Amino acid sequence: MDFSQVLKNRRSIRDFQDKDVPINLVHEIIEESCLAPSSMNGQPWSFIMINNRDLIKKLSDESKKNILSKIAKNPDYPLKRYEGVLKVEAFNVFYNAPCVVLITGPRAMQSSVVDCTLLASYFMLCAAAKGLGTCWIGLGAHIQDPKIKKEIGLPDDQVIIAPLSLGYPTKIPEALKRMPPKILKIVE
Amino acid sequence: MDFSQVLKNRRSIRDFQDKDVPINLVHEIIEESCLAPSSMNGQPWSFIMINNRDLIKKLSDESKKNILSKIAKNPDYPLKRYEGVLKVEAFNVFYNAPCVVLITGPRAMQSSVVDCTLLASYFMLCAAAKGLGTCWIGLGAHIQDPKIKKEIGLPDDQVIIAPLSLGYPTKIPEALKRMPPKILKIVE
Repeated sequence: MDFSQVLKNRRSIRDFQDKDVPINLVHEIIEESCLAPSSMNGQPWSFIMINNRDLIKKLSDESKKNILSKIAKNPDYPLKRYEGVLKVEAFNVFYNAPCVVLITGPRAMQSSVVDCTLLASYFMLCAAAKGLGTCWIGLGAHIQDPKIKKEIGLPDDQVIIAPLSLGYPTKIPEALKRMPPKILKIVE
Repeated sequence: MDFSQVLKNRRSIRDFQDKDVPINLVHEIIEESCLAPSSMNGQPWSFIMINNRDLIKKLSDESKKNILSKIAKNPDYPLKRYEGVLKVEAFNVFYNAPCVVLITGPRAMQSSVVDCTLLASYFMLCAAAKGLGTCWIGLGAHIQDPKIKKEIGLPDDQVIIAPLSLGYPTKIPEALKRMPPKILKIVE
């Protein structure tokens, strides 16, 4: 697919067809995404692939519970604006995507967030180039229960940096209008 | 250009032709990059475009000085491994690129780093699609002198997240071999 078309097709998708994503396709997207740059070529990213709707629902419930608990303890918690929807039992933070990929990085590595975010950006574009839709689900990163961490193979020294939903979109919406770029200064 | 070709052509470039980058082309790349996703569509990124070799040299010198001072105060500082090269007067952290674009974000916004990194990833790919080369220069972010901050139009409430060099590459090197992706778990 033409690069500029991929840029336009990469939209945050929150409505998926009822169709599974073949696991070898997820592997392919991950392989391609690894062309992303990383600090000192460290490639510190790891992957958890979840192609199981029951487990995805469990992750959503766990993350909702933990965010609500953080909001209860701290009314200034940045995710407070989501309090209402997080209390809706039927709300799945992953928007019922058939597949979720968690990109994780070493907790102790300073460049983890930047490196794994670069990887995630590549992942979302590579998926779009194959006709798939993704969304970075910040609300899905709050996994604390040791049993669930074990179930998804997340060791204590790794953190979830990019929780990405993945599936076939029902449609690709038009890009939201972007603000004109804020140019602070041009020096020629 | 085909998407998969852009993925392959996006390499960290550290050797540039002696040829300026037209400022309208930098504008175009920035406009396209703004198709990047951001947390709650906040688009918190701002841009400083520097197409002036003297100022780029000044930024390099300022950043080197500040990193060396941090290393002197803290021998465990992560950039200590660069101490030797940072002491070489002729070493320019931007590898003598004709243009530098600083992507900045609000200091107080939690999602700044992730959002501006997603933007930077788009920027590097969009530049590659136009035959230009980039490199994320972590060593170029350490700008502290208030006079220099004023000269580049960087307000105190903004931080430099992605310092990117930009120019026409002398050649596009082959991609370094990537490690096989670390898959922590697949749940089907």
